[in-house]
Amino acid sequence: MNLILLVPADFLGETRVRLEGRRFRHVKDIHRASVGDELNVGLSGGLVGKGKVVEFRDDALEMEVDLFREPPAPLPVMLILALPRPKVLRRVLSSVTSMGVKKIVLINCRRVEKSFWQSPLLEDDRLNGQLVLGLEQARDTVMPEVLVRPLFKPFVEDEVPALTNGTVRIVAHPTAPKECPRGVNGRVSLAVGPEGGFIDYEIEKLLDSGFSAVSLGERVLTVETALPSLLSRLF
Amino acid sequence: MNLILLVPADFLGETRVRLEGRRFRHVKDIHRASVGDELNVGLSGGLVGKGKVVEFRDDALEMEVDLFREPPAPLPVMLILALPRPKVLRRVLSSVTSMGVKKIVLINCRRVEKSFWQSPLLEDDRLNGQLVLGLEQARDTVMPEVLVRPLFKPFVEDEVPALTNGTVRIVAHPTAPKECPRGVNGRVSLAVGPEGGFIDYEIEKLLDSGFSAVSLGERVLTVETALPSLLSRLF
Repeated sequence: MNLILLVPADFLGETRVRLEGRRFRHVKDIHRASVGDELNVGLSGGLVGKGKVVEFRDDALEMEVDLFREPPAPLPVMLILALPRPKVLRRVLSSVTSMGVKKIVLINCRRVEKSFWQSPLLEDDRLNGQLVLGLEQARDTVMPEVLVRPLFKPFVEDEVPALTNGTVRIVAHPTAPKECPRGVNGRVSLAVGPEGGFIDYEIEKLLDSGFSAVSLGERVLTVETALPSLLSRLF
Repeated sequence: MNLILLVPADFLGETRVRLEGRRFRHVKDIHRASVGDELNVGLSGGLVGKGKVVEFRDDALEMEVDLFREPPAPLPVMLILALPRPKVLRRVLSSVTSMGVKKIVLINCRRVEKSFWQSPLLEDDRLNGQLVLGLEQARDTVMPEVLVRPLFKPFVEDEVPALTNGTVRIVAHPTAPKECPRGVNGRVSLAVGPEGGFIDYEIEKLLDSGFSAVSLGERVLTVETALPSLLSRLF
């Protein structure tokens, strides 16, 4: 936790904040902070700054906070991701959030196991928990938006044209002959398939919607390794 | 497992291979292969190709293999990595192996918890197991070399000069003002610190040894996200 993400309900007054629960325990057990220490803080959706610990009790602490800086710039990308298995999804949500992705669409496709859609991780609270971990890691405050689309065809046909309008549309596909571009200008829509890849029909639907298929070379990478690689190459 | 990694002991004859154990069960349960199917195979340290299943029993299968292609090119990098916590180390070893890293030096430094050095994952068999997973993922056959160096100062003073001779020396440091370069020419020695970063003394020792400190921008990333990002940007 490189930043403590605050919400309006944490504020006792204009600059006075009270922390309990997970964030308090983290500050106590990991940062081992005490009165007088300064911690990195940020207001959800707002500025980042410093919080000076002014009171420290067994179950809560209070800080005086000064918020004065914009959070890091977002990446101009929408990530369209075939729903990975739950333990991978958990890590991927935090990872791409830490890199600055602000819009994530979780989609179904043929090689996504049906059981993945039953994961409790897809409940709002659990999803948001993983996004918060990513923000705390990267000292960011702006929550990504997550859309969940369990039907491939209607999503691609009815929503993709408007969602990706005006963006560079890219689908990562291990067998594509074209290499992933470096340093793209403008907004990008990046589609990434499941383990085993999109099937031909799905790739064709995406190509029909204006996507170009690119690869990261001969090596087939897991989604957890491929995503930071792709994002880091594109931006 | 996008490739079945074979060792000389698997060969019954010039081109005849017998699989048992983990690899057999994977082929049976995940690929659901049967007689006549062709699988991607590679000989450890050698060529990759195809294996045609010619016999399938309850506990083993036999293949006729044809090895005809070089494995994917390695990345020209030596990764010097502060030992991460065991569950992170496990994933990171596979991940960087899948990307083509062929030399990994696991080092100690101040912010590495002492207990990490007790992990059974550092035993040769377990380490190699994770490297094999990375090779199987990326259809590679060439095992990385892993050096384990639990003393920072003697490593940097006595070994680093010769190990990194003739390479571009880079240390990833979140507060460095210089951005990580894109598309470096030549071999790279890349040092990556622990969660919380190298301490000043360690950074100074590395700078004294000819390293330049670079960052990936304002965002602080976990080692699992930072490594694919760095490698993908450098190469």
